[in-house]
Amino acid sequence: MTTNSSTIYYTLTDEAPSLATCSLLPIVRTFTSAAGIDVKITDISLAGRILAGFPDRLTEEQQVVDGLAFLGELTQDPDANIIKLPNISASIPQLKDCIAELQGQGYDIPDYPENPQTDEDRDIQSRYAKVLGSAVNPVLREGNSDRRAPKAVKEYVRKFPHSMGEWSKASRSHADYMRGGDFYSAEQSLTMAEAGDVRIEFVAEDGSVTVKKELALEQGEVMDSMRMSAGALREFLEETMNDARDSGVMWSLHVKATMMKVSHPIVFGHAVTVFYKDLFAKHDELFAELGVNPNNGLSSVYEKIESLPRSKREEIMEDIHACYEGRPELAMVDSVKGITNLHVPSDVIVDASMPAMIRNGGKMWGPDGKAKDCKAVMPESTYSTIYQEMINFCKTNGAFDPTVCGTVPNVGLMAKKAEEYGSHDKTFEVDAPGVMRVVNAAGEVLMQHDVQPGDIWRACQTKDEAIRDWVKLAVNRSRQSDTPVIFWLDRNRAHDIELIKKVNEYLEDHDTEGLDIRIMTYVEAIRRSMERMIRGRDTISATGNVLRDYLTDLFPIMELGTSAKMLSIVPMLKGGGMYETGAGGSAPKHVQQLQEENHLRWDSLGEFLALAVSLEDMGLKQNNARAALLAKTLDEATGKLLENNKSPSRKVGELDNRGSHFYLGMYWAEALAAQSEDAEMAAQFAPLAKAFSDNEAAIVGELEKAQGKPVEEEGYGYYHADRAAVKRIMRPSKTLNDILAQANS
Amino acid sequence: MTTNSSTIYYTLTDEAPSLATCSLLPIVRTFTSAAGIDVKITDISLAGRILAGFPDRLTEEQQVVDGLAFLGELTQDPDANIIKLPNISASIPQLKDCIAELQGQGYDIPDYPENPQTDEDRDIQSRYAKVLGSAVNPVLREGNSDRRAPKAVKEYVRKFPHSMGEWSKASRSHADYMRGGDFYSAEQSLTMAEAGDVRIEFVAEDGSVTVKKELALEQGEVMDSMRMSAGALREFLEETMNDARDSGVMWSLHVKATMMKVSHPIVFGHAVTVFYKDLFAKHDELFAELGVNPNNGLSSVYEKIESLPRSKREEIMEDIHACYEGRPELAMVDSVKGITNLHVPSDVIVDASMPAMIRNGGKMWGPDGKAKDCKAVMPESTYSTIYQEMINFCKTNGAFDPTVCGTVPNVGLMAKKAEEYGSHDKTFEVDAPGVMRVVNAAGEVLMQHDVQPGDIWRACQTKDEAIRDWVKLAVNRSRQSDTPVIFWLDRNRAHDIELIKKVNEYLEDHDTEGLDIRIMTYVEAIRRSMERMIRGRDTISATGNVLRDYLTDLFPIMELGTSAKMLSIVPMLKGGGMYETGAGGSAPKHVQQLQEENHLRWDSLGEFLALAVSLEDMGLKQNNARAALLAKTLDEATGKLLENNKSPSRKVGELDNRGSHFYLGMYWAEALAAQSEDAEMAAQFAPLAKAFSDNEAAIVGELEKAQGKPVEEEGYGYYHADRAAVKRIMRPSKTLNDILAQANS
Repeated sequence: MTTNSSTIYYTLTDEAPSLATCSLLPIVRTFTSAAGIDVKITDISLAGRILAGFPDRLTEEQQVVDGLAFLGELTQDPDANIIKLPNISASIPQLKDCIAELQGQGYDIPDYPENPQTDEDRDIQSRYAKVLGSAVNPVLREGNSDRRAPKAVKEYVRKFPHSMGEWSKASRSHADYMRGGDFYSAEQSLTMAEAGDVRIEFVAEDGSVTVKKELALEQGEVMDSMRMSAGALREFLEETMNDARDSGVMWSLHVKATMMKVSHPIVFGHAVTVFYKDLFAKHDELFAELGVNPNNGLSSVYEKIESLPRSKREEIMEDIHACYEGRPELAMVDSVKGITNLHVPSDVIVDASMPAMIRNGGKMWGPDGKAKDCKAVMPESTYSTIYQEMINFCKTNGAFDPTVCGTVPNVGLMAKKAEEYGSHDKTFEVDAPGVMRVVNAAGEVLMQHDVQPGDIWRACQTKDEAIRDWVKLAVNRSRQSDTPVIFWLDRNRAHDIELIKKVNEYLEDHDTEGLDIRIMTYVEAIRRSMERMIRGRDTISATGNVLRDYLTDLFPIMELGTSAKMLSIVPMLKGGGMYETGAGGSAPKHVQQLQEENHLRWDSLGEFLALAVSLEDMGLKQNNARAALLAKTLDEATGKLLENNKSPSRKVGELDNRGSHFYLGMYWAEALAAQSEDAEMAAQFAPLAKAFSDNEAAIVGELEKAQGKPVEEEGYGYYHADRAAVKRIMRPSKTLNDILAQANS
Repeated sequence: MTTNSSTIYYTLTDEAPSLATCSLLPIVRTFTSAAGIDVKITDISLAGRILAGFPDRLTEEQQVVDGLAFLGELTQDPDANIIKLPNISASIPQLKDCIAELQGQGYDIPDYPENPQTDEDRDIQSRYAKVLGSAVNPVLREGNSDRRAPKAVKEYVRKFPHSMGEWSKASRSHADYMRGGDFYSAEQSLTMAEAGDVRIEFVAEDGSVTVKKELALEQGEVMDSMRMSAGALREFLEETMNDARDSGVMWSLHVKATMMKVSHPIVFGHAVTVFYKDLFAKHDELFAELGVNPNNGLSSVYEKIESLPRSKREEIMEDIHACYEGRPELAMVDSVKGITNLHVPSDVIVDASMPAMIRNGGKMWGPDGKAKDCKAVMPESTYSTIYQEMINFCKTNGAFDPTVCGTVPNVGLMAKKAEEYGSHDKTFEVDAPGVMRVVNAAGEVLMQHDVQPGDIWRACQTKDEAIRDWVKLAVNRSRQSDTPVIFWLDRNRAHDIELIKKVNEYLEDHDTEGLDIRIMTYVEAIRRSMERMIRGRDTISATGNVLRDYLTDLFPIMELGTSAKMLSIVPMLKGGGMYETGAGGSAPKHVQQLQEENHLRWDSLGEFLALAVSLEDMGLKQNNARAALLAKTLDEATGKLLENNKSPSRKVGELDNRGSHFYLGMYWAEALAAQSEDAEMAAQFAPLAKAFSDNEAAIVGELEKAQGKPVEEEGYGYYHADRAAVKRIMRPSKTLNDILAQANS
């Protein structure tokens, strides 16, 4: 056994999760040690990553290990077992705050140079660049994606279902998408027979060639190119607005500007300038002068006109209001504040907004604060057809019933940046008529599109190794969970035609005897999955990267009411496993509440679930029966916790994160004591179970008593907290601490 | 070669088709004789059938061959080739008219005895019973059904499409059906391992047993039983009415009272008494006294209250009007006359009404004469799901576009009265609580249902031989037309589970190499068929008897605008073929126009198409290349006729049936002269083509000149016309007659 084969690497991140870790880990280790498993903390917090970037500026004592670099290397180890908690994807203001805090703590790190002038500045900026934004996931996600609803959560929901809006059979709501001129209709795709370099080029009408990008492709790599016609898009948008107005439904736009980072903001911008076309026509020059950017939404107009004289501002405001005449009602993000669907591009993100609409009986909120039917516009037809299929399904069969629904887990193609349409370096907004093309080293044109100014052209890569692993993962999941799998691949789509060939080929590498494996178009696949789901049957969706992103919200929100309770596993290409917890950030608001009321409402459910799979996998891979037993009993404990409603309350004075951890420990110990698989383990944990149970009132009392007043700890930092101080805050029950110390002695 | 192997039996029927035959056959024979094919007339007219029933009352000269009996025998001949034109399904008034006419012509046949008192009367009545109603089809339809859109018609429609109503993506229209308590949910089915007798029994709560019916089943025969709960039905109806009112759509009921002769009128009656529940509650006793039968619709109330004093009538009328308060708008059959959907059960027949609604953008006509969205209620869910699927499809993809649509031909299970749910002798409205069951000769209970008063229970039979032949026909059609076939069989439905076993078994008997044969649920099947259809692809639907009936209207109405232009072929179990022409009766109104204006607007398109298939099959079966050539060139001629708009006009003075026949002959001769497959045939028909062409103006002129005045022919009868007189009427062009005589000399 190597060390890693019996180690779980548990990430120390930021804000609420990092606080919760302090309370949870002592409990967890009490259990894992019984299976010879070490749970090691690796610091990948924002502060930790900053410090790791400047060893030369720190004293030896201040220097830290580069946790992220360590984990990055670990992903290549077949024994890797990493539990990854949510972390801060730092914006520049957050980065600056953190730097200031560290400097205040005596770390001699430099300020962030916004406008670097010297080489030194540039060096500093480049070091900071490595910790900015989504810096962690690309390093750790060294594999495809395995997302599923944990059994305990499914069972809980079947008993205590979330609310679902009613669907009227006569609902007018529908999805609308382009029937031509979009990426789907113009997609081209090829598989590289040999490794080789390609160039993305623009050929102007005068024949001049501009190289936009050079790429080195691997053998077997799939490369796509596609074009959306700006003219067709604008025509489509105008038609949908007129149709919505005429048929009396609200109009709403659903894009994914955060993922399709370049293309979708442009699409969004077209929607803004089409909807408010009179406004933009009238103030064309002024807006250009002011730097109004419609891709940032109507808010860009509001922001830029601030500087104008009052009378001019008022004129423009009147012109904005005039635009609503002759247009359909706009679906609102915030009816009270008057924030529409076209305000900013990041407010309505298709993978969250469409499930919310469908869960709400197909309705969105109108300007008058009423829920109404609407036309959900998703111009790019590649994926939007699935929403129309689900809408039709709900009209026909009514809202999904969480108490009977089966589940649709996802096996998503993600490894090695597969199908990253968002990659801004391969997306271009064309500014002159001509041809966009992909040319190989021999000068042969592999793919090409005629383009007009404003057209969006983008390319995308998918590595063969990633596809091969994805097929394996799908087969494995099907086998392990005894569940049929559908590969969502559209036989009419260029990219998918290439993938279908590979899937069929790589399926041959596996024993698929007795498995139900199908390849279906997205619409066929979602329909079959839904038909099975309402009959209580499960169906694995094996999808590409975008559908992975969409479906891991869509189905969880129907089945569980949230996607935060899903297991999110990355089985590494090299054999290890990463287990992600939670969804949706590290909850700065929770920290604020802790500081003010000493109540932490962070729900560690994601950690419980991830830990169970981490242990389960370790049991399987290392042939560690005790790890497997810990996994099983932990799931039982989580189920009991859910059922007994021992999740953290939002209100001070009630059970919080710390109390919830105590109950998890108690139920876990009880489950171990009650099992008969491993008598020694039962004997070991029986006294702990008894101690927990006997002292339940005392412990809960102590935990409650700690609440209700501001936290006052010396040396406590927001980004870089003194762990001793955190320990005092997060472990206030002497009774519990004593019991744990006793158990570990 | 037997005689039959080179003979086409062409039926002489009634009214317009029989007149048309007189003009068409001389032309047809000019062509068929060149392939050694004889076209023989067989009289199955109402008059002919009457005369055949009373040889003992007629002089030897007056006696006629029993054409129907002859054809009945012929169906058992593998060489049978019958072209069947529409005939009168005689009602008693029609029968009496015909008798009177024959008596006036000197035929000593007896009057129809309405209340037979003597044995002689009873004998007479029983002889007349054989010609009443739908007497012809059961004798001739000795096989399953093969219905398809002829190529020429498809091509015509692609160029000259019928109008299609627009579908709004925001349409509120939908189909609604029971989700439990109906026949579908309670269906039971079994296959007889051995031949044997079964009894249908009712067991009352006191244990007493009533035998309702005894049946002798064959080995391998499938028997079903099913129950619709009256309580569940009424609850469903009430809910749909409330939902339609609340969601602001019209309410309409779609049943098939003419096919499900017993069960659907009862369902219809429940709809009437639920919709007008206050009316029926208040006047319960009076209505019973008057003999009001809600199964006949609200018209039964109107009819029965005629006898009441005016004040009482007015009270009831007011009560009817009061019922509309709190109810949704009712879809209208005739807005002007105020005839609602619930007026009579035969006005809204699902297989015609639903396609009409879907073709009309999902709208029906409201009381105010406006087209509106509606809830189409089809309580029995077995088949109604296909309409909801098509509605959703049209909302998503828009109305079908006839210019690009592929086609969905049908291979329907029909032989030996398969799946005749309409058989009134096996449908029962239960009048006491108890059990309906099917028991075998050994007293074993094979199937049973708990029933409550008002519940509808019915059984249904399907013979193994019919199923076996149906599978063969589907495979043959798939092979011959190089078209995928889908067996529409629902793996969740008891009856279909039995059929799926047989289909899988019997498919083994055929070479299916290279064919695309699938078994899918109705909803999967229609979806796939539609997806293919809008992409111009064809898909054969192999369905049971009810779906045969529904689909052979649904798809033709979308594809062709009418089901009258479909080929309707019955490939006989014994190997022969019957080719049915037209749909929807023998057009008495056309005869009236002929008598008044000497203009016959009967369209013989159905005959042209049927004749082509008849010839094609003869070519195939008898290895008669010339027959095949005739078929091919006839189709070309028909295509040209459609394209040049040489179908009969509705208006006197324009081209009528006779002129249309001339053009068919001309185009047919031209096609034969132009082909190079058979030089001898080309040489033979070139002079005819030239003669037709040279004399086109003369012939059309002569035909036109005949029009515009009443027909005055001695001895002309309506039911039993003097054929010489008919000949004078239907062949008025001397030029044409001379050319034909010359060609046949």
